[in-house]
Amino acid sequence: MSGPCSVESREQIVSIAKDVKAAGARILRGGAFKPRTSPYSFQGLGVEGLKLLAEAREVTGMPVITEIMDTKDIEAVEQYADCLQIGARNMQNFALLKEVGRSKLPVMLKRGLSATIKDLLMSAEYILSEGNFNVLLCERGIRTFETATRNTLDLNAIPVLKAETHLPVVVDPTHGIGLREHVAAMAAAAVAAGADALMVEVHNSPELAKSDGEQALLPDEFALLMNRVRAVAEAVGRGL
Amino acid sequence: MSGPCSVESREQIVSIAKDVKAAGARILRGGAFKPRTSPYSFQGLGVEGLKLLAEAREVTGMPVITEIMDTKDIEAVEQYADCLQIGARNMQNFALLKEVGRSKLPVMLKRGLSATIKDLLMSAEYILSEGNFNVLLCERGIRTFETATRNTLDLNAIPVLKAETHLPVVVDPTHGIGLREHVAAMAAAAVAAGADALMVEVHNSPELAKSDGEQALLPDEFALLMNRVRAVAEAVGRGL
Amino acid sequence: MSGPCSVESREQIVSIAKDVKAAGARILRGGAFKPRTSPYSFQGLGVEGLKLLAEAREVTGMPVITEIMDTKDIEAVEQYADCLQIGARNMQNFALLKEVGRSKLPVMLKRGLSATIKDLLMSAEYILSEGNFNVLLCERGIRTFETATRNTLDLNAIPVLKAETHLPVVVDPTHGIGLREHVAAMAAAAVAAGADALMVEVHNSPELAKSDGEQALLPDEFALLMNRVRAVAEAVGRGL
Amino acid sequence: MSGPCSVESREQIVSIAKDVKAAGARILRGGAFKPRTSPYSFQGLGVEGLKLLAEAREVTGMPVITEIMDTKDIEAVEQYADCLQIGARNMQNFALLKEVGRSKLPVMLKRGLSATIKDLLMSAEYILSEGNFNVLLCERGIRTFETATRNTLDLNAIPVLKAETHLPVVVDPTHGIGLREHVAAMAAAAVAAGADALMVEVHNSPELAKSDGEQALLPDEFALLMNRVRAVAEAVGRGL
Repeated sequence: MSGPCSVESREQIVSIAKDVKAAGARILRGGAFKPRTSPYSFQGLGVEGLKLLAEAREVTGMPVITEIMDTKDIEAVEQYADCLQIGARNMQNFALLKEVGRSKLPVMLKRGLSATIKDLLMSAEYILSEGNFNVLLCERGIRTFETATRNTLDLNAIPVLKAETHLPVVVDPTHGIGLREHVAAMAAAAVAAGADALMVEVHNSPELAKSDGEQALLPDEFALLMNRVRAVAEAVGRGL
Repeated sequence: MSGPCSVESREQIVSIAKDVKAAGARILRGGAFKPRTSPYSFQGLGVEGLKLLAEAREVTGMPVITEIMDTKDIEAVEQYADCLQIGARNMQNFALLKEVGRSKLPVMLKRGLSATIKDLLMSAEYILSEGNFNVLLCERGIRTFETATRNTLDLNAIPVLKAETHLPVVVDPTHGIGLREHVAAMAAAAVAAGADALMVEVHNSPELAKSDGEQALLPDEFALLMNRVRAVAEAVGRGL
Repeated sequence: MSGPCSVESREQIVSIAKDVKAAGARILRGGAFKPRTSPYSFQGLGVEGLKLLAEAREVTGMPVITEIMDTKDIEAVEQYADCLQIGARNMQNFALLKEVGRSKLPVMLKRGLSATIKDLLMSAEYILSEGNFNVLLCERGIRTFETATRNTLDLNAIPVLKAETHLPVVVDPTHGIGLREHVAAMAAAAVAAGADALMVEVHNSPELAKSDGEQALLPDEFALLMNRVRAVAEAVGRGL
Repeated sequence: MSGPCSVESREQIVSIAKDVKAAGARILRGGAFKPRTSPYSFQGLGVEGLKLLAEAREVTGMPVITEIMDTKDIEAVEQYADCLQIGARNMQNFALLKEVGRSKLPVMLKRGLSATIKDLLMSAEYILSEGNFNVLLCERGIRTFETATRNTLDLNAIPVLKAETHLPVVVDPTHGIGLREHVAAMAAAAVAAGADALMVEVHNSPELAKSDGEQALLPDEFALLMNRVRAVAEAVGRGL
């Protein structure tokens, strides 16, 4: 899974979609509703962003995943997306978990910044218990005392989760380490540890990105990452 | 502020309300919508619980505070409550923050388990920026490596917050330390450090409580806590 | 207990000793061997610092406490000090713990940055098991994700330690919060929570201090802190 | 690097040494002086353990690495070991760092449980500044809120350290995750992320081990781990 942090314009999302597809990505990510620490930061294009995502899908044929932040938005998001994402800050927004548990779409649930592995599994249970069994778990970094990296990507969670549940495990190295130059190393490590999928942010002009530009890869860098990941996947007996 | 974790029955909430009022509490707390880690735990009585809270208010004259978990519940909660509570797990549920920012009721915002003081202030900003200036900040313990206590009540946050904002600072020692026998010590410490108010859980039969019974005080223990807190408040030049 | 972070000169240590004694301090602290993160920072005056401490004791009559960092220094430190301090970074330097366990002097053991309360008690056990029963435990802040304060002073440890051991509990609010303007609030809170003693850094020219000047109090500020602490101590039924 | 946590007997250490050599290990590890949280746990065989390590070296031709815990032991350890290890609990035992900085032997410095990457580099600087440039840095897990794993092995540290220093980076997945069944996954991930070497605990009878038996691999499991690691190393363009 790959794409920009936020959907910003038709040109931006379609261009990036083509690039990541060419490099081997299967699913297009892009945020329309953005959870930002500050109310004064860019909050996403909303429904307009959803429509642009759907256009990029038409052009490239890639299914799209996008975040839902409020129970009130379920109809709008279901109309345009192929997979729902619950962000780390909403991992214990139980009303929202129940709502997506009643959806027909698959749900990718991101681990909260201070959520234990057990907490993550219990939150998944909220979705499963409403009847939606299509849940993916996503490790995206926990909050520790370390300040050299944005978060501490906890790869230990991969083998532990694989042993405790049959749900697929996705790893997001971009938010996990938060440093563009080290995303590929962590992506390769995640696959070596047993991750089933990766989510990587790519932007064609990171310096102009409206959110998280400093950690997004350029399309060329993403292609190199895919080569490294492909080699490691084969080494541990898996294909892409 | 005092009362049980969850509203469980008319008899329970009215009895506890009378007890805590007699000991000096000013505001009655009680959960109707309960955020629980597991979907299989007691989830609260919902609107029925709100009605019972309102009954306890009629009997005792105490205003009530209760948690809101979903934007969809705003009308129901506003109808019965005097103060809205945003729980720690929803501190970065930005859709909910904006919703309560449009309410006329005061809002108590609890610090998330892994939220920095700056994150807490930015979340408060979501409420303030919608026009609701009646915001109380609540320290209720952060998540650290220490396992001897339920959470690590971070009293350092009190003087830091008092220096950075004019918003009142509430401390919840019950969830913070999570051990009934040590709640009074932390309550006294919070007041000595400059807290403006306390939120303490009290239950008349903690062993039968449907949630968090092991950390709730008995009414008699709460009265002793109030005496200790009153003495410390006077020592630092404040009344109750 | 009070005094400067490092002993720097005869004039400095004697002057501060007189000031803190006048404000009510009972024991003089001062570092001769300094554990610094960087080898290029000031490392303390060594044995020369110990002699200056002893001079300050002669002038004021106050017993002195100072840190020991290496088993090789035990004879030198024992010759001049009245109480040995094990710093947070050496809390699990087991060779050193055994060495001071064979000393006749009391030992103040500081909690490590990431030590659980149980770890702290087990380290104390190393000293006790060698026959030295004069051990004081010191809470001085743990390492968490919070960056607004230097460390997170964990006052929760006070009631927990008081319930689990008969050893006296000292609190060091200076290193705990690391912000001069908030040391007094945390000192008062520590006493309200049940601390038996405080260790507070005072310097007569913090801006010239060779270590940790930004968190040391001026003698006048220390006198105000003592007044606040005295009032809280009386409120909870204790004298100074 | 591989071998048991503690040297326990001649038969044990020689047998394990032969097994790990056969599987591809280059350096034999084994503890003679053991840093244990409790004074009542097995503390290691001391000098006797050093002699047994030297015997295993004679039999197998493998150089040996062992931990030094006290400046007083430097002569004894230098006499028998080929590489000195500073344990996580002594990462900021600055007297010890200076002592090994004056040794002619290489030093492997383990990251402390709550040490930032910057702290680790500053501790290495203590060794380098005394003239010993043969320093290896070892990531072995940090302390976080997560309790499903013993520690949180922080693989993010690998690319960050490789970018900031020329010193080799070793990873210890055994202590890092602390769960035998997941050590191989983390070892493969470490190599994929760029680690230069691994340290893995192996024991021929883990259930009888005097320390940390629950996380040691059997020789057969270690051979499988080596196969997986070898494949990943080749995939990222490195040999073993």
